[in-house]
Amino acid sequence: MQELPSNVDPARFAHCAEAIADAARELAALGWTPATSSNFSMRVSNDLAAITISGRDKGRLGREDIMLVDMAGRAVGTDARPSAETALHTQVYRRFAGAQAVLHTHSRTQSVASRLFARAGLIRLRGWELQKAITGYSTHESELDIPVFPNTQHMPELVAQVDTWLDAGKPLHAYLIDGHGIYTWGTDMAEARRHLEALEFLLGCELDLRRLSA
Amino acid sequence: MQELPSNVDPARFAHCAEAIADAARELAALGWTPATSSNFSMRVSNDLAAITISGRDKGRLGREDIMLVDMAGRAVGTDARPSAETALHTQVYRRFAGAQAVLHTHSRTQSVASRLFARAGLIRLRGWELQKAITGYSTHESELDIPVFPNTQHMPELVAQVDTWLDAGKPLHAYLIDGHGIYTWGTDMAEARRHLEALEFLLGCELDLRRLSA
Amino acid sequence: MQELPSNVDPARFAHCAEAIADAARELAALGWTPATSSNFSMRVSNDLAAITISGRDKGRLGREDIMLVDMAGRAVGTDARPSAETALHTQVYRRFAGAQAVLHTHSRTQSVASRLFARAGLIRLRGWELQKAITGYSTHESELDIPVFPNTQHMPELVAQVDTWLDAGKPLHAYLIDGHGIYTWGTDMAEARRHLEALEFLLGCELDLRRLSA
Amino acid sequence: MQELPSNVDPARFAHCAEAIADAARELAALGWTPATSSNFSMRVSNDLAAITISGRDKGRLGREDIMLVDMAGRAVGTDARPSAETALHTQVYRRFAGAQAVLHTHSRTQSVASRLFARAGLIRLRGWELQKAITGYSTHESELDIPVFPNTQHMPELVAQVDTWLDAGKPLHAYLIDGHGIYTWGTDMAEARRHLEALEFLLGCELDLRRLSA
Repeated sequence: MQELPSNVDPARFAHCAEAIADAARELAALGWTPATSSNFSMRVSNDLAAITISGRDKGRLGREDIMLVDMAGRAVGTDARPSAETALHTQVYRRFAGAQAVLHTHSRTQSVASRLFARAGLIRLRGWELQKAITGYSTHESELDIPVFPNTQHMPELVAQVDTWLDAGKPLHAYLIDGHGIYTWGTDMAEARRHLEALEFLLGCELDLRRLSA
Repeated sequence: MQELPSNVDPARFAHCAEAIADAARELAALGWTPATSSNFSMRVSNDLAAITISGRDKGRLGREDIMLVDMAGRAVGTDARPSAETALHTQVYRRFAGAQAVLHTHSRTQSVASRLFARAGLIRLRGWELQKAITGYSTHESELDIPVFPNTQHMPELVAQVDTWLDAGKPLHAYLIDGHGIYTWGTDMAEARRHLEALEFLLGCELDLRRLSA
Repeated sequence: MQELPSNVDPARFAHCAEAIADAARELAALGWTPATSSNFSMRVSNDLAAITISGRDKGRLGREDIMLVDMAGRAVGTDARPSAETALHTQVYRRFAGAQAVLHTHSRTQSVASRLFARAGLIRLRGWELQKAITGYSTHESELDIPVFPNTQHMPELVAQVDTWLDAGKPLHAYLIDGHGIYTWGTDMAEARRHLEALEFLLGCELDLRRLSA
Repeated sequence: MQELPSNVDPARFAHCAEAIADAARELAALGWTPATSSNFSMRVSNDLAAITISGRDKGRLGREDIMLVDMAGRAVGTDARPSAETALHTQVYRRFAGAQAVLHTHSRTQSVASRLFARAGLIRLRGWELQKAITGYSTHESELDIPVFPNTQHMPELVAQVDTWLDAGKPLHAYLIDGHGIYTWGTDMAEARRHLEALEFLLGCELDLRRLSA
């Protein structure tokens, strides 16, 4: 059972847990969370985030599958184990003050695109009207870079790669991990989902174009 | 709130708003309206059209997401902002006296086909039985041309491109915008949807054939 | 309204109409009947068949969308117009005494495969376990030939092409028409649907293999 | 009717029959069991397994479509005929003491992958995060081999091929049969389904990568 610290508003936690469970079920129905992969979180306060418990079936997720972690990724008020990639979620909350929701999925398109562009280290999107679905982009003539980081089972390495990108001052709205999936976020769950939906669409378009232009 | 001018039959507006919301939800379920893209309209009278309010999630559209515009694309009886591409809808109503419904969607097939055929400036369909689903076509031996116009964030340029095509006296049942999506219409919502469904199918077939004939 | 001739058992007609409407709705949900294309029939008696009325939306089909025709394809007891391709259905009932149901659909896979193999005039399937879903085939080592006939808007030509194939004594379980779709049948609706489902699957596999073996 | 031997707990049989029917309906909805293909089983005791009766439509499966067989694949307490490939199920229960559920499906991806890799005799998966969904694999850097055995209508030959692989001491979590489908299993139905879902995903990714890297 999740016990709430006294400085956590139970209504806020309930809201986050429900929004996460809703997103998880709907994204699972699209086939983007195969075989218990993927994880989802929301910021509960400056110091805490709600995140999916490790290994649960995302198609059947409920509020009881959501737990609290602090911004170092440690469980708070529960014995449950958070998703292995919790450190990547809390990094987003630490680095982006406005981020309120982080989504990590694992669609076939995302996995294949990550492998295909791993050597290049990034996917450059341009010429697509739907780039405008990413907050801050107002024209198809902009360039939207999605980095592809090498995969590793050692989380601190992944965290360091993302930090290096950010410390270089490059814009970041999402990233892929090679052979794995995508991370994206937003100032609320709706924006995070719009970003995810747009990026899945754009990656699929890029793969199709590449198949057809060969 | 949408206020209705005295010369608008409330039942007619309600009918249009409901038909638009139904179409939007069903097309969203097919994945043709990713990330709040796409917009839909119906003619309410000679001077007015009902159209989707900008930025709403097409999968959850209701009557309250539909507003009135005049044929210059200005909001009528509401403070809401119409879809950015309203000018392309009202152009269809001005140029085609019989047009009663206009659909703009944004499927992966439509987006990819628009990029692939942008240089050629059109997609020529022939040899497909389903061309007969487009009103006026009675044989697979006909040629059905779908122009692909360059994309721009400046609506008057898009409007001018469509006008140029029409002023040249060429038949037009639908058009694509590069990197973007499709516009099509009909003498009622059913015909507009039949046109859209047939064109999505035919574009998909053309892409498949190209992949397979390489 | 459909009036039933005195020699038609109303329960038999009702059974056929319902089975056809069920099949149409379920096949439409798979996307195999785009833009009011496709048609379906069942044998009601030696002399009569129940068939879909022309131009109805297959996704919303009910019993009132089914009518009677004689084996020459003429409407019986109704003013409704049968599907344009009725002659191809009644030909199956005339040539195959055991045929009780005929299905014609129009999936993207069927349309693309028909274009791709039109020049060869047939698709030869071998090596697929699922060939065993076609009645009379008991091993993946058999060869299953699906002819592809040229398309024409003149039905008697299509009928003549099928007659020529059959008169040559070649086995026939289904055929494609170029740029169009598939016809298949069975000794009851369940067998016809099993044949259709297996052929859609096998055509899709052949297209995939061709893409991948290039 | 299925009669239960006195040493079979009716609750255990009911549990297995229900879990099999649930899995069958859900996998059929994904299109992985075309045209009555595919079969599913669970271990009921050391000596008995519950398995799908031959030829039933997997999309409409209920408890009455499940029967008992002994570990030689013979029907127990019923006149029904078990799936033709029962011997492959009982082999898994004999060779893997911990196996409690066996799934055999027949998706387009599985069928196409089996044809494409038949000559190589196996598909080697590496670099995919989702390999971790297979019990015993903890990193994307591992190699996961899925053998592809030649198809035959003679079950003992298939059984012998699997035995030869196992007798050579090679790890086995799943195998494909050429032009046919996949077999996989788990220590309970949830693990078997997770394995199946992960392998379908990984095979699809491999096919996509091959298409895109050409």
